[in-house]
Amino acid sequence: MKAIVFEDFKTFPTLKDVEKPIPGPGEVLLKVAGAGACHSDVAVYNEFEEGTPGAVPPPFVLGHENSGWAEDLGPGVSGIKKGDAYLVYGPIGCGRCRACSRGQDTYCENAATNPYLGVGLGRDGGMAEYVTVPARNLVPLGDADPIAAAPLSDAGLTPYHAIKNSLPNLAGGGRYALVIGLGGLGQIGVQILKALTGATVIATDMKPEAMAKAEAAGAITVGGGEGQVERIREITGGKGVDAAFDFVGASSTVKVAAQSMARMGRCTIVGIAGGTFEWSFFTNPYEATLTNTYWGTIEDLHEVVDMYRAGQIMPEVERYSIDDGLEAYRKLQAGELSGRAVVVPHGS
Amino acid sequence: MKAIVFEDFKTFPTLKDVEKPIPGPGEVLLKVAGAGACHSDVAVYNEFEEGTPGAVPPPFVLGHENSGWAEDLGPGVSGIKKGDAYLVYGPIGCGRCRACSRGQDTYCENAATNPYLGVGLGRDGGMAEYVTVPARNLVPLGDADPIAAAPLSDAGLTPYHAIKNSLPNLAGGGRYALVIGLGGLGQIGVQILKALTGATVIATDMKPEAMAKAEAAGAITVGGGEGQVERIREITGGKGVDAAFDFVGASSTVKVAAQSMARMGRCTIVGIAGGTFEWSFFTNPYEATLTNTYWGTIEDLHEVVDMYRAGQIMPEVERYSIDDGLEAYRKLQAGELSGRAVVVPHGS
Amino acid sequence: MKAIVFEDFKTFPTLKDVEKPIPGPGEVLLKVAGAGACHSDVAVYNEFEEGTPGAVPPPFVLGHENSGWAEDLGPGVSGIKKGDAYLVYGPIGCGRCRACSRGQDTYCENAATNPYLGVGLGRDGGMAEYVTVPARNLVPLGDADPIAAAPLSDAGLTPYHAIKNSLPNLAGGGRYALVIGLGGLGQIGVQILKALTGATVIATDMKPEAMAKAEAAGAITVGGGEGQVERIREITGGKGVDAAFDFVGASSTVKVAAQSMARMGRCTIVGIAGGTFEWSFFTNPYEATLTNTYWGTIEDLHEVVDMYRAGQIMPEVERYSIDDGLEAYRKLQAGELSGRAVVVPHGS
Amino acid sequence: MKAIVFEDFKTFPTLKDVEKPIPGPGEVLLKVAGAGACHSDVAVYNEFEEGTPGAVPPPFVLGHENSGWAEDLGPGVSGIKKGDAYLVYGPIGCGRCRACSRGQDTYCENAATNPYLGVGLGRDGGMAEYVTVPARNLVPLGDADPIAAAPLSDAGLTPYHAIKNSLPNLAGGGRYALVIGLGGLGQIGVQILKALTGATVIATDMKPEAMAKAEAAGAITVGGGEGQVERIREITGGKGVDAAFDFVGASSTVKVAAQSMARMGRCTIVGIAGGTFEWSFFTNPYEATLTNTYWGTIEDLHEVVDMYRAGQIMPEVERYSIDDGLEAYRKLQAGELSGRAVVVPHGS
Repeated sequence: MKAIVFEDFKTFPTLKDVEKPIPGPGEVLLKVAGAGACHSDVAVYNEFEEGTPGAVPPPFVLGHENSGWAEDLGPGVSGIKKGDAYLVYGPIGCGRCRACSRGQDTYCENAATNPYLGVGLGRDGGMAEYVTVPARNLVPLGDADPIAAAPLSDAGLTPYHAIKNSLPNLAGGGRYALVIGLGGLGQIGVQILKALTGATVIATDMKPEAMAKAEAAGAITVGGGEGQVERIREITGGKGVDAAFDFVGASSTVKVAAQSMARMGRCTIVGIAGGTFEWSFFTNPYEATLTNTYWGTIEDLHEVVDMYRAGQIMPEVERYSIDDGLEAYRKLQAGELSGRAVVVPHGS
Repeated sequence: MKAIVFEDFKTFPTLKDVEKPIPGPGEVLLKVAGAGACHSDVAVYNEFEEGTPGAVPPPFVLGHENSGWAEDLGPGVSGIKKGDAYLVYGPIGCGRCRACSRGQDTYCENAATNPYLGVGLGRDGGMAEYVTVPARNLVPLGDADPIAAAPLSDAGLTPYHAIKNSLPNLAGGGRYALVIGLGGLGQIGVQILKALTGATVIATDMKPEAMAKAEAAGAITVGGGEGQVERIREITGGKGVDAAFDFVGASSTVKVAAQSMARMGRCTIVGIAGGTFEWSFFTNPYEATLTNTYWGTIEDLHEVVDMYRAGQIMPEVERYSIDDGLEAYRKLQAGELSGRAVVVPHGS
Repeated sequence: MKAIVFEDFKTFPTLKDVEKPIPGPGEVLLKVAGAGACHSDVAVYNEFEEGTPGAVPPPFVLGHENSGWAEDLGPGVSGIKKGDAYLVYGPIGCGRCRACSRGQDTYCENAATNPYLGVGLGRDGGMAEYVTVPARNLVPLGDADPIAAAPLSDAGLTPYHAIKNSLPNLAGGGRYALVIGLGGLGQIGVQILKALTGATVIATDMKPEAMAKAEAAGAITVGGGEGQVERIREITGGKGVDAAFDFVGASSTVKVAAQSMARMGRCTIVGIAGGTFEWSFFTNPYEATLTNTYWGTIEDLHEVVDMYRAGQIMPEVERYSIDDGLEAYRKLQAGELSGRAVVVPHGS
Repeated sequence: MKAIVFEDFKTFPTLKDVEKPIPGPGEVLLKVAGAGACHSDVAVYNEFEEGTPGAVPPPFVLGHENSGWAEDLGPGVSGIKKGDAYLVYGPIGCGRCRACSRGQDTYCENAATNPYLGVGLGRDGGMAEYVTVPARNLVPLGDADPIAAAPLSDAGLTPYHAIKNSLPNLAGGGRYALVIGLGGLGQIGVQILKALTGATVIATDMKPEAMAKAEAAGAITVGGGEGQVERIREITGGKGVDAAFDFVGASSTVKVAAQSMARMGRCTIVGIAGGTFEWSFFTNPYEATLTNTYWGTIEDLHEVVDMYRAGQIMPEVERYSIDDGLEAYRKLQAGELSGRAVVVPHGS
C-alpha cells in the first residue's frame, strides 16, 4: 500500500510502497478515511535530531490525526463493527499506569520505556491506505463525515482539553477568555469557548484574515503591538481575563497572556514555541495560575466528537489524495495552507 | 408615600399611605425604580398562617424584587453614588455567620432569631415609592434599564444559583439539561443554560405558549403525559440528562426530573410545590444527586447583572403604576400574566 | 487446579478440580495470592435467580477480590514482570466506552451486552490456584503483603471511591462525617476518613464490638434507637454532618443518614439493602445531595494501594486454605467472621 | 489608653497614650485580649516609604492579628454579646464589591480608593487596650483561649487559605505536600496539612530547630543545599509533590518549589520576599500550576477557629504586656523570637 514515510531526521518524508499492516492482539485495522497534516510533524522530520526531547526515531509512517473505517479485528477484539467509522486517539502509553488507566496516555508514567509515543509518532500512522490502532483508541463517529473529523484528534482535542481544564474559571456570567494564536487549534478554541461558555472571547493573531475568521465565530479581536495588554484589559473593564490560552507559546505571547490575567484566572500555555516568562509574586494577579497542557484524554475525544456532531466544532479542511500528500506537507511548511490539510487515501 | 402593604395573613394587600423611611446605620434609601410581583408573595399573604414554616408576620410593605436609585445614605455608608441605579439583593441575614460572610444570607445560621427574612419579607419591601436596604445588598446596574432588571433579584437569581451549582455537570461537550416548568424562572433558566453551557436544553411545561417561548430561546420541548421520561431520555441517546431543574416541585414533576437523570447528573428541585419522591438505590442512576436550592448569593447577583447587561438574560416584564399594583397581584393570582409584573412607582 | 465454583443459582458453591486457565490476548495469568470472600458472593449464589438484575449466570469460579503473582503473559502484553505481586481491579467493561476509557468499568455503557461483569462475576475469579485477568486491571503491590491486600479490591475500593467523591464536602476545618454500618467496608471507611480528612468521624452500628473497633480507629460512636439523629446532630453543634456514608442501605439507615445532613452536605448510600427514602424539598437541608455509588475506578485502586502501603488502611483478614474455602463462605453466611475471609490457595 | 503607634515611615513604633476609640455605625469596641506582632509590621514601619506598593500612611496603632472581648456596640449592631471573646478578621474592603460580598476583603475591587487596608493596616489596630472593628469581622471564639488565638488571624489564616485552595490536589491517597520556610506560618501550615490531608508532608528550612519542630508535628524534613530538589523528588518516588507552599518567596525557594512539582500539582508562593522564577513550557510538569495567595476569607477564619478549638492548630506564643510591646517588636526584628509574640494589654 502507499504510505508517507518519515525515513530520517532532517529529511523530507517520502511517498513509498509499504506492507499493509496486520492488526495484533487488541488492535484494529482501519481503512484510512483521513489523516491530518500537523505542524508537529514538521518538527518531527525537520527539526528534531536523535536525542532531542520528544524526538521519535525513524522510520515510520507519519500521521497522528486519523480517522477510518474498521476493516479487520485483531485477536481479542470485540464490539467494533466492520465498516463503521472511527476517530483515532493518537497517544499510546503503557496502558496500565494511573494516567493510562484514566485514558490520559499523554501523561503515561512509563513514557521513558515505551516503544513509541503514539500512532504516527514512532509507530506507523495514518498517512497510508491502512493503519492499525489499539481498539481502546477508537471513538465512534456514527454518521458524521470522517474526513473533516480527522484533524479533531489533535487540533480539536488539544484546545478542548486546555479549555475543559479552565471551565471552572469560566463558569458563570461576566467571564472573559483570551485566545492567542488563531491557527487551526486557536480557531477551534474560539468555537469551543463560544459553544461551552458564556464568556466574552477575545482573540488575537498577527494575520488579519485569521482575526476576521475569529470575529465571524463570535470573538472580539485585538491587534498586536504596543498597548495590547491594556486594550485587552480595557475590554474586561480592567479586571483581566478569567482564562487565557496561548496557542503560540513564544516569550512575547506568554507575556501577553500572563499580564492579561484576572485574579483567580487560569493562564494556559498550549503552544510549544518554547518561550519563557519571569514570574513574580508581585506581578501575578492574586491566585491567578500559570500552567501548560498537552493533548487530551480518550474521554475528551468522545466529547469533541459530540461537539463535532452537534455542529459546535467545524474544522476547516483541504483534502489531498495520498499521491498529493507530500505537496500538503510542502504547503504546510511554506505556510500556504489556510485550513487543515487532510490526506484522503481512498478519496473524499 | 404610597405603598402596597401586607396587613394580615390570608388577606389581600392594601394600597395605602405610609411614612417615607429613613436609612439607618449602614443603610441606603432607594427611590424605587421597579418592584417585581412574585408568586411567593401570594403564598405570603394568601396561604401562610402564623406559625407556618417560612411565614413572616405582617404588617410590612411587599416587594422583594427591587431596583432603584440611591437617594440618601445612612450613617457609615460610603461608596454609593446618589442617583446611581442599583439592583437589590433581597435576603438579609445576621451578617456575621459563615453563610452571611460569604454573601449567602439565605442560609444564615441565625435565621431563627433574625427579625425578618429580607427586604419585602418581614421588613418593608419595594412596593412603595421608597425603600431602605443595607448598603451591602446593592448591586450596581450601570446604565442598564433598572425597571426590567427588578425581577432578576429573584426570578433571575434563583435559576442562576441553581444552574451555577450544576455547571460542573454541564462542563463539556455532549451534555443535556432539563428544565421543568416554564414560568418566569424557567424561561430565564433556559436563557441562562443556553448562554453558559453547550448543553442541549430540553424543556417542558403544560402551556403550549410557554413551550413555544422556550423553543424560541433555543430549547427542545417535550410535552407532558405518558412516556414523557422515555421521550426525554430518547433525546439524550438513552443516557439521560446531566442536570435537571424542576421549577415546579410537585410530586409528578420531581419524579420526571429524577427519572430522567444520567449517571453522575445533578437533579435540582427549585419549585416549592412540596412534592415528595421515593428515592431508592436501585432506581437512582449511579452517582446522580438529588438536591434542592433556595435563592442565591450576592456575588451570584452581580453575575446575573453581568448577563443582563450582556443581553444574555432578557426578562419579560409588564409595567404597572403603583396605583395599579393591586391589579398586578390580582392578575398574578388569576394566572393572567404572561411576563413578570413590575410596579414602577415613579413611572417607566 | 482446585477452584471454588458457583454452579447454579440458589446453590452453595462447590470445591472442584478445573482446568488451569491460559491467558488470552492482553491478559495475564496470576498465581493467586489471596481471594477475599465478599457478602455479594452470597447474593450471587444464594439470592439471585436467572433474570434478577445483577445476576450473573453460572457456572464460574467465584472470587472478585483478588491478588496474585504474575505467572505468564498472554499475547500483546508487556511491562508486567513475572513474579511481581499485583492487586486485581475486578470490574471488566467493554474497554472502549467513555466510562471504561477513564478506568471506571463499573459504569460501562455497554454493560448490557458484555459477557460478564468482571473477574469472579460471570468470568472465572480468584477462588482458585490461578486466574487470568486483563493486564490493565493489575495494580502493582510492590513489596506489600498481597494476601492482606486482596479484600482491598472491593472492601477498600468501594468506601474509598464513595469517600473520594465526598472529599470536597469535607475539605476544611470543622467538618463532620457519618459512617453507618461498621462491617468490613465501614471499618475501612473510618480509617480512610481519619487518614484523608480532618473531619470528626461519627460512627454507628448495632454491634458493640464493631463500635469499639471504630472508636479505636478514632471515631466517635453513637448507638442506635430513638433519638439517634438528634444525638448525631448534637455532636455537630446542630448543623449536621457534611458527608454521610451508609454502608447498610436499609430504609431505616438511609433515613438516619439523610436526616443527619448539614446544608450542602453529601449523603451517599453504599449498601445495597435496597431501602427507600421519601425525599422532600422541605425536609432536605438546602443543597444537601442524596446519591449512591458502586465500587470504584482503576486509578482509585492505585490510591487504595498507596494508602495500604503507607499503613493508612489496615484490613483485618482471616486466612483460609483453598480446601477450607467453602468453610469461609459458610461462616460468612452465618455471620461468624469478624474480619474478611481470604482464601490463600498457595499458603500464607 | 496605651497604644503602640506607627508614627512615621522608617521609624520604630512608639508606646504612647491615645484616646480610647468609640465604635461607629456597624462597629464593635473590643477590649483587646491579644495582638500578635507580625513580620509584615516590620515591613510597614521599617521598609516601606510613601508610595511603596502596599505602604499604609502613618500614623495609626499597629496590630492586625487581634482578639478581644466585646465591650460596646456601635449603632446598628446586634447579635454580638458583650463579654464574649472574638477573633478579628483583619482586612477591610469596601464591603460591597464581589470579593467583599464573599468575605474576601483582601481582594476588594475598590482597594485603590479605600481609606485603609484593614485593622492595624492604615486603621488603628489591636496593639492597644481597645480597638474598634466592623461587626462582620468578628469570629466567635467560644470558650477557647483568646490570647493564643490572636496570631491565627494572620499566621493561621494565611496558610489555611493557601492550603484550602490546594486541597483538591491533595484529595486522595498517595499525595505529597512540600512546606518551605518553617517560621510561624510554615509550622502552622504543617499542622494544617497533617490534620486535613493524608499527604506525606515534606518540610524544609535553614534552621535545625525549626526542622525539629516540624518533624515533631509529623513532617519529613529535607535539608537545603545541593541536590535538595532531587532529595524531595526521591521521597515522592520521583513523581514530585502534589502541592508546594513556599512561605519564604525568595528566588531560591520559589525555584525549589517549582522544580519539585508533580504533574497537575499546585505550587503556591505565600512569602513576599519578592523572588522571581523563569517559567517555561518545557520545564513545567504538565498541568502543574504556579500561583500566589494573600491572607484569606472570613469563612476561612471561622474554619481556622474550628481547627484551633479542636486542637488541630496549636500556635506557639510568647506573651508580652503592652509596656513590653516594643521589646516584642525589637526581638522580632532581631530574629530572637521562637514563637509568635502576642501583646496582652489586659494581662494573660
